[in-house]
Amino acid sequence: MYLENEIAEQPIVVKRLIDNIANLHAVVSAIKDFDPAYVCIAARGTSDNAARYAQYLFGNTLKLPVMLATPSLHTIYETPPSFGKALVIGISQSGKAEDVRQVLEDANNDGALTIAITNFDDSPMAQTATYHLPLLAEQEFSVAATKTYTAQLTIIAMLATLLSESNTMMSELKLLPDHTSETLSLSDGIAEWADRYRYMDKIVVLGRGFNYATAFEISLKVKELTYIASEGYSEADFRHGPIAVVNNGFPVMLVAPKGKVFDGMTDMREKLNERNAETLIISNDVDLLSKATKQLPVPELPEWLSPIVSVIPGQIFGMQQAIARGLEVDKPRGLSKVTITQ
Amino acid sequence: MYLENEIAEQPIVVKRLIDNIANLHAVVSAIKDFDPAYVCIAARGTSDNAARYAQYLFGNTLKLPVMLATPSLHTIYETPPSFGKALVIGISQSGKAEDVRQVLEDANNDGALTIAITNFDDSPMAQTATYHLPLLAEQEFSVAATKTYTAQLTIIAMLATLLSESNTMMSELKLLPDHTSETLSLSDGIAEWADRYRYMDKIVVLGRGFNYATAFEISLKVKELTYIASEGYSEADFRHGPIAVVNNGFPVMLVAPKGKVFDGMTDMREKLNERNAETLIISNDVDLLSKATKQLPVPELPEWLSPIVSVIPGQIFGMQQAIARGLEVDKPRGLSKVTITQ
Repeated sequence: MYLENEIAEQPIVVKRLIDNIANLHAVVSAIKDFDPAYVCIAARGTSDNAARYAQYLFGNTLKLPVMLATPSLHTIYETPPSFGKALVIGISQSGKAEDVRQVLEDANNDGALTIAITNFDDSPMAQTATYHLPLLAEQEFSVAATKTYTAQLTIIAMLATLLSESNTMMSELKLLPDHTSETLSLSDGIAEWADRYRYMDKIVVLGRGFNYATAFEISLKVKELTYIASEGYSEADFRHGPIAVVNNGFPVMLVAPKGKVFDGMTDMREKLNERNAETLIISNDVDLLSKATKQLPVPELPEWLSPIVSVIPGQIFGMQQAIARGLEVDKPRGLSKVTITQ
Repeated sequence: MYLENEIAEQPIVVKRLIDNIANLHAVVSAIKDFDPAYVCIAARGTSDNAARYAQYLFGNTLKLPVMLATPSLHTIYETPPSFGKALVIGISQSGKAEDVRQVLEDANNDGALTIAITNFDDSPMAQTATYHLPLLAEQEFSVAATKTYTAQLTIIAMLATLLSESNTMMSELKLLPDHTSETLSLSDGIAEWADRYRYMDKIVVLGRGFNYATAFEISLKVKELTYIASEGYSEADFRHGPIAVVNNGFPVMLVAPKGKVFDGMTDMREKLNERNAETLIISNDVDLLSKATKQLPVPELPEWLSPIVSVIPGQIFGMQQAIARGLEVDKPRGLSKVTITQ
């Protein structure tokens, strides 16, 4: 099974990227010279969730506002917005997303600084952007992206570290490969209880701040692998309305490692408990974990890096659900590995 | 029932706003003087969907890139991004969304140009922003927002019209109140067949481009009113993955008025048909409507204005579902009218 191997490779990929952080020096110095007013990221699906991580990380550490592109304005409407003052980043595993490539080309024409983050040096996106940052993840065979997602997040974390010139962040970053390995070990237990969710037909995944991206990515992974109605939300948005769907036994996964948004997440768990929801909690807080229906522990680490490990128990949960249901894990129906939206 | 009345008031509210378009002259001239590099919009829930409309409309007609704000960076993380070169717009029915107000305050401190769009002149957001554009929608009593949403969209459409100085857009805009009335008449039939969906427990709503916002808003309205798992998607995103959830009888609503993205939507209908999905189609194309399981017709109008009427059949469908299920239409469980997220 490719998926299982690729999930397991994540510590190696993360380590390979960080060991080669010097590869980013040229692009970092180009960004500093360009001094962008804001960042625009074009991506689809899993890569779009990597963009959501950048929204919070670049805003938090660099005071840089980040927008997500609207590719159809570039391709179908043919009225691209003006990106002259922007750093424009295209993210795609294959590098073949035609609409994302078009955003990069239009941004080049506007005089923007452009970067592609893909797994293939010879991909159309890599060829279009001024700078290409390779994922160094080796070929990903499983249709559901895992190691390329954490590689995308790691590159974003490395860019923020170098641009902020923070020694603290650099020291924290260097521990990330170990944290990633430890997360895999901590996730061994999931296989033992995954059967409980064999007949689950919907799930909600909640996060906020840095882990808003994680909630969306886990939700997408579960949906891709099991075809059930799986939805990701900001905890703040869920609280005001959608929480109405939660009744007795409704499964909700909370992405709640320690950090600034932790209090809101613990409060949400109490609200869910009042509704007798089934809670699956990804956290490094022993007390919160002890209150979960099912515990998905992750190691202690700084909040800004937590999305890179917090997604892993969700990936494994999704895979175990596909296995429990006897589904094709490596090639889910309706999915193709390369997405070329016009 | 407040909801029914407020849905029916939409043509009057739209007309009142357009009759008072002169109210926007001061803010439009301030925007021209400021000459923003981009726009940032802060909003939650229904108002966030109005922001999605602005993303496409401002990009398409003004070449202005539009980002959605990340309020938790302002409130919980206390590390707001720098908005010095941006036009920053806060949208909220009540004007009491504390996190959105904080984004406006931080943007003022950065020297950005700020606008609040709310229904109350004395609301905290109206008091914080440099300019306030009132929705002129009179009090909205139903918890599910309808007339304030179409009012938000109408103000965004008026801003784009005045900023682009397009006589064509101005002539088209003036017909909008009539198109809104006509949509209500065309939607009369929904009550007759709504019972068919009495036991539906999930639905997907698809749109793209201008009507990406409409798909999200209809999905939210159905979820708020009926508590079912209702999801909005870009047709382009749904095609590459999530379509795997669709099997025999799965209900999918397509927001597909004529325009640039129409061909993609008709292609999607064929794909859904192959999977024996149940299709509910909002369109002004007779041929496409004839292929739907259930037709939700809207009048002929330019694509850029179509989101303001296309949402109406979705609002009525949501209301009829709540009625069929014997639910409290005006005060769904779990929802409060005023959202004050910190």
